[in-house]
Amino acid sequence: MKENYLYLEIAGEIEGQIQKGLLTAGDKLPSVRAVCLKYNVSMSTAQMAYFTLISKSLIESKPKSGYIVSNWLKNSLELPQTSNPKMVHPGKTDDALVSSIFESINNKKVTRFALGAPASELLPIRQLNRAVSGAIKDLSGCGTEYDSIEGNSDLRKHLAKWFYKTGAQVLDNEIVTTSGCLNAIAYCLMATTKPGDAIAIESPAFFGLLQLFQSLGLRVIELPTNATTGIEIDALEKVLSQEKINACLLVSNFSNPLGSCMPDEHKQEIVKLLNHYNVPLIEDDLYGDLYFGNNRPKTCKAFDKEGMVLCCSSVSKTIAPGYRVGWIAPGKFKEKIVRLKMVNAIASTTLTHQAIANFFQTGGYENHIRKLRHTLHSNCLQYTQAITNYFPEDTKISRPQGGLFLWVELNKSINTVDLYKKALQNNIVIAPGKVFSLQNQFNNCMRLNYGLLWSEKIENDLKLLAELLY
Amino acid sequence: MKENYLYLEIAGEIEGQIQKGLLTAGDKLPSVRAVCLKYNVSMSTAQMAYFTLISKSLIESKPKSGYIVSNWLKNSLELPQTSNPKMVHPGKTDDALVSSIFESINNKKVTRFALGAPASELLPIRQLNRAVSGAIKDLSGCGTEYDSIEGNSDLRKHLAKWFYKTGAQVLDNEIVTTSGCLNAIAYCLMATTKPGDAIAIESPAFFGLLQLFQSLGLRVIELPTNATTGIEIDALEKVLSQEKINACLLVSNFSNPLGSCMPDEHKQEIVKLLNHYNVPLIEDDLYGDLYFGNNRPKTCKAFDKEGMVLCCSSVSKTIAPGYRVGWIAPGKFKEKIVRLKMVNAIASTTLTHQAIANFFQTGGYENHIRKLRHTLHSNCLQYTQAITNYFPEDTKISRPQGGLFLWVELNKSINTVDLYKKALQNNIVIAPGKVFSLQNQFNNCMRLNYGLLWSEKIENDLKLLAELLY
Repeated sequence: MKENYLYLEIAGEIEGQIQKGLLTAGDKLPSVRAVCLKYNVSMSTAQMAYFTLISKSLIESKPKSGYIVSNWLKNSLELPQTSNPKMVHPGKTDDALVSSIFESINNKKVTRFALGAPASELLPIRQLNRAVSGAIKDLSGCGTEYDSIEGNSDLRKHLAKWFYKTGAQVLDNEIVTTSGCLNAIAYCLMATTKPGDAIAIESPAFFGLLQLFQSLGLRVIELPTNATTGIEIDALEKVLSQEKINACLLVSNFSNPLGSCMPDEHKQEIVKLLNHYNVPLIEDDLYGDLYFGNNRPKTCKAFDKEGMVLCCSSVSKTIAPGYRVGWIAPGKFKEKIVRLKMVNAIASTTLTHQAIANFFQTGGYENHIRKLRHTLHSNCLQYTQAITNYFPEDTKISRPQGGLFLWVELNKSINTVDLYKKALQNNIVIAPGKVFSLQNQFNNCMRLNYGLLWSEKIENDLKLLAELLY
Repeated sequence: MKENYLYLEIAGEIEGQIQKGLLTAGDKLPSVRAVCLKYNVSMSTAQMAYFTLISKSLIESKPKSGYIVSNWLKNSLELPQTSNPKMVHPGKTDDALVSSIFESINNKKVTRFALGAPASELLPIRQLNRAVSGAIKDLSGCGTEYDSIEGNSDLRKHLAKWFYKTGAQVLDNEIVTTSGCLNAIAYCLMATTKPGDAIAIESPAFFGLLQLFQSLGLRVIELPTNATTGIEIDALEKVLSQEKINACLLVSNFSNPLGSCMPDEHKQEIVKLLNHYNVPLIEDDLYGDLYFGNNRPKTCKAFDKEGMVLCCSSVSKTIAPGYRVGWIAPGKFKEKIVRLKMVNAIASTTLTHQAIANFFQTGGYENHIRKLRHTLHSNCLQYTQAITNYFPEDTKISRPQGGLFLWVELNKSINTVDLYKKALQNNIVIAPGKVFSLQNQFNNCMRLNYGLLWSEKIENDLKLLAELLY
């Protein structure tokens, strides 16, 4: 048993005792040091076990008396309810607001809770630099020559293995590389839809996707989505039976922004359902590798027998956003996708794609991702604890089991676009809920990225955010 | 006076003597060594002067007697005539043929006359490797972080200077970087047209562009184009007056495949004409830096006062195809272009874009491009000479004054798709004329890339190509 998973075991054991009533509200728990000794683990593992329980609001930290079992039904912040978008054809995103959020990506003077990537301190930079040097040596022309249109062949061999770990059997020649995941999704949309077509998606959904849909002239059908289990199958089925849907796009694992993860049975059922209506599924599995539990969740692609799932991902949330390395397993749409890539870009950046292949080759990916998952889980729990401590009691918060984001729902009276502006004056950037829908929803919500390095500064900024609410 | 330009001066002097009748057909010219001594230049400069005159068929080399003045009216291959596409709305490209040509890009076992880039031996690889190392040092996160959406700011400062050399006044914040030039053009088309719209272009035109137009659902209006001066202004004016044209795309300098270069007056007139009809001009200036003469030709952008010219280029034909570094000066369409880049790709590859900025910074670009131009000019003359020597007398050939391509028109009875297949069996890839139009034209034409290293092998392959014609 790896040290990395031990904290989950320890947390699970304590959770079991609470559920069985062996530990009840107010009971004092052993100190962190005592847990270390009992389980023969490091301080950080013991701490993580307790953070895990805190995030579930099962225990809490009491000044001077250590950890006690919570009166958790009272203390825990609620989960956001399943979204309930109107089934009307919607308006537009606030382009200026979205642009202003995107601009904050490169402003390092602010606390970038709106960023959609891990802090660069969490990336395997030294190994990547070596991988780039290796790529310069390996490549004919040192990376100056055009890559093949389908993409670097070393990389695609590693990606075939990557797909295998998601439960999907995809050969290297069934994969096409792209300049990141959004680029992959753009090609998938171009391959499966035309202007005026309808696309079914989760609600809330990433604002970049919403803008892409608009740029392609698609009608966006936002569907009810649960913060834990993702899109509501009944709602999808209903809309499929009522009108012509040309494609469906889902972030199956640890969605952006909700953090929901579709259970395997949902994935299987949705693939079957969409097949029945002959609707291609564009699967965005950008966050699937960032799971907190013991096992990597499967992709919908794992259940795809007809080649109707176009599964997209990238290394932008795990290794190197700036390298622009993404990919698609496009199923029966492969030829179309290759042609689209050819006419829109000719080829990918030879050097960074070979560098990522080299990084996979060294086994660096597995090692790195294990550490990153650990850090993100710990961060997620720290953020959740801080928000529980500082934010109003009626705040609702998602419970992601992976990915990069917390979704925070505030009191209906609060407008997070105003909060965004106030926060910006305090050098904090949040992503206000409004931009995650075309339907003027989520005006009291926000998305927070916990991929930043946890620090006193981050905790203080979360506290400051809370103070701006009062 | 730089040594590089001297050969043109020498050639010009001799040409003048021929035109004045001071030298007539059959007259013996001084030996190359004598030219060296007379003008105090190197052997290669003297040789280039003679190659220049040979390419114009003014002189020829006679075994054992050196160079003599040609009976040039008889010996020179003719120029292809101005194209005359039917003004009907056309069919489709041969997708399989185009894919097969694109695949040959990465096949190093064949002689790649169909390639659209200089051989990697002609690229400044050592300096680029240093520029990459520098970029890793310079960049925060060593290039793993997202680039800004508009693009690397160092690079854009250098590009503003680059535009100045093309006669255009463009500020760094009026430039957006892209993943190469085709990617830039794709965004320009998305910004200015919608499916069903009409686009006016040269004929013949690059097959990648034709496929892009089709993928965007555009109606393609191919217009008569002169092998020396580019698109026929009268034809453009006529079509503008007759039907709604939504955009015009021109390769203003050293077009692909014709090699034509629009005279400045044509550029000025066309910008004015398109403005009158309120039609945006997408200018593809991919080859403008590869001029053989003394001065870099201007861009249409230089004559753009209304922001209606979207000028695109890249380093793919000059420094590093695989780096995927391109750019647009989109005029009044900038906001749209930024949004399109954002939703289709988020950002460019951070590392290679900074590397190119560093390469510009060292002054490496000017030095490199001077050498490259010299080599390409020499290659162009060698190819022309070989084709004149080996191909049938009724062969017509373009006289590019820059760029990478020769356009060869064979006897009407010859089908270059058949030639393509036969050549492929002999490990030679040509680009058959048919793929450069949607109108089943140019079936007796082909495009040859002279960006390969000149060698006996290349000469023999040209000879072999000629033999396949008989």
